[in-house]
Amino acid sequence: MSQTIFDNIRIVLCQTSHPGNIGSAARAMKTMGFQHLYLVQPDKFPNPQASALAAGADDVLDSAIVTQTLSEALVGCAFAIGMSARKRYLSHETVNAREAAVQANTYAASQPVALVFGTEMSGLTNAELDCCQLLAMIPANPEYSSLNLAMAVQLVCYELRMTALEGKLDAPAGEVLATNDELERFYVHLEETLLQIGYLNPNAPKKLFERMRRLYSRARLEKEEVNLLRGVLTLTKEPRKHTKY
Amino acid sequence: MSQTIFDNIRIVLCQTSHPGNIGSAARAMKTMGFQHLYLVQPDKFPNPQASALAAGADDVLDSAIVTQTLSEALVGCAFAIGMSARKRYLSHETVNAREAAVQANTYAASQPVALVFGTEMSGLTNAELDCCQLLAMIPANPEYSSLNLAMAVQLVCYELRMTALEGKLDAPAGEVLATNDELERFYVHLEETLLQIGYLNPNAPKKLFERMRRLYSRARLEKEEVNLLRGVLTLTKEPRKHTKY
Repeated sequence: MSQTIFDNIRIVLCQTSHPGNIGSAARAMKTMGFQHLYLVQPDKFPNPQASALAAGADDVLDSAIVTQTLSEALVGCAFAIGMSARKRYLSHETVNAREAAVQANTYAASQPVALVFGTEMSGLTNAELDCCQLLAMIPANPEYSSLNLAMAVQLVCYELRMTALEGKLDAPAGEVLATNDELERFYVHLEETLLQIGYLNPNAPKKLFERMRRLYSRARLEKEEVNLLRGVLTLTKEPRKHTKY
Repeated sequence: MSQTIFDNIRIVLCQTSHPGNIGSAARAMKTMGFQHLYLVQPDKFPNPQASALAAGADDVLDSAIVTQTLSEALVGCAFAIGMSARKRYLSHETVNAREAAVQANTYAASQPVALVFGTEMSGLTNAELDCCQLLAMIPANPEYSSLNLAMAVQLVCYELRMTALEGKLDAPAGEVLATNDELERFYVHLEETLLQIGYLNPNAPKKLFERMRRLYSRARLEKEEVNLLRGVLTLTKEPRKHTKY
């Protein structure tokens, strides 16, 4: 087991309603050896109920980072996995929590990785999912899949720990993944270009563009590949001086 | 998956102090498809706090069987696994929760099997352990192994379910992947376009282009996505009638 893996994993909770769940999640994280907690717009935090349920894991709460957006919580992350209780439309790659843990650990050997959880009531929004490169589900009872948020955090952290302890991960591939903020800048560049060449409808650019985002998100772009693609975009946008017309 | 396995597994909680934990455990069981709960001398049961935390799993609470001794709760069971947070002396065979789930499922295919949990404070007594054929541990953080009782039930039921399901998710959403020949036609189109916009060096186009191919190949493109991307390429190549120059 490498301590690096544990240090490189962050748990991100989006818009959690109940502070008790934040405390229980912190406790769940610590029992499995994880400590980096990010809270995107929590309803109530800090909060005595969170502290009470954290039991001896108040250090995790004390060092939790609160952000206004998911993107902020993902800064520096090379790979983000969105947790979902249900199937989503569209073409997100979906795996179970065990497979997600294997993939997370592989990347976390060298770069920060995030596991992202949505609200208690409705999970992650589509916009939040679009910040993730992989979607993971916990295989629950289809007739009653009402898994408590902290329970879901517990299961995912357990799978991460089991995978890390099994130590049978391949050596990480040499490639360096692009960070979330590099990806976001690429998406902005891509959208501008697609508007400029008349591919996206300026009145309704979102739907088609979201498909493009997802496609690139599935590819898990490396740093260098983002640069290659942005090179293409730059040439696409430039007026072509040599075009014969 | 055989429903028999789910029917043949019982969760046994010994002398639970907090009724809330009983409710949360019932919810955890139901999310993983289990329903047979046995309570050995619970401190307070039935109890409103148990019902509140069971959320929609009150059917599990309603059908819970309360006994005075662990032996009574194990009547009819072929195999009992005691859960422990720490190493025990003596010569109990000890496995991790995953291995315990494999063994439980093997027996549960034909006979009732019990997973036995001790009190919140001190776990199972030695006398209770002696009613079990196997001892199982959840590999937790050695510096903070304070796993909540309901969390432990959740993890064990999850492992049982994963083993029973062999970790399978439902069939993936209906996306249709592009065929190899569709991909090849896309790559030809892409290479032409990249040459035309001056991105690839016409004297040595291969090296850079191979990286682009690999990137798209990792995305496992769907049919429709290939069409989207070729739409972009077509617009990129066309002389831009509206460009101001």
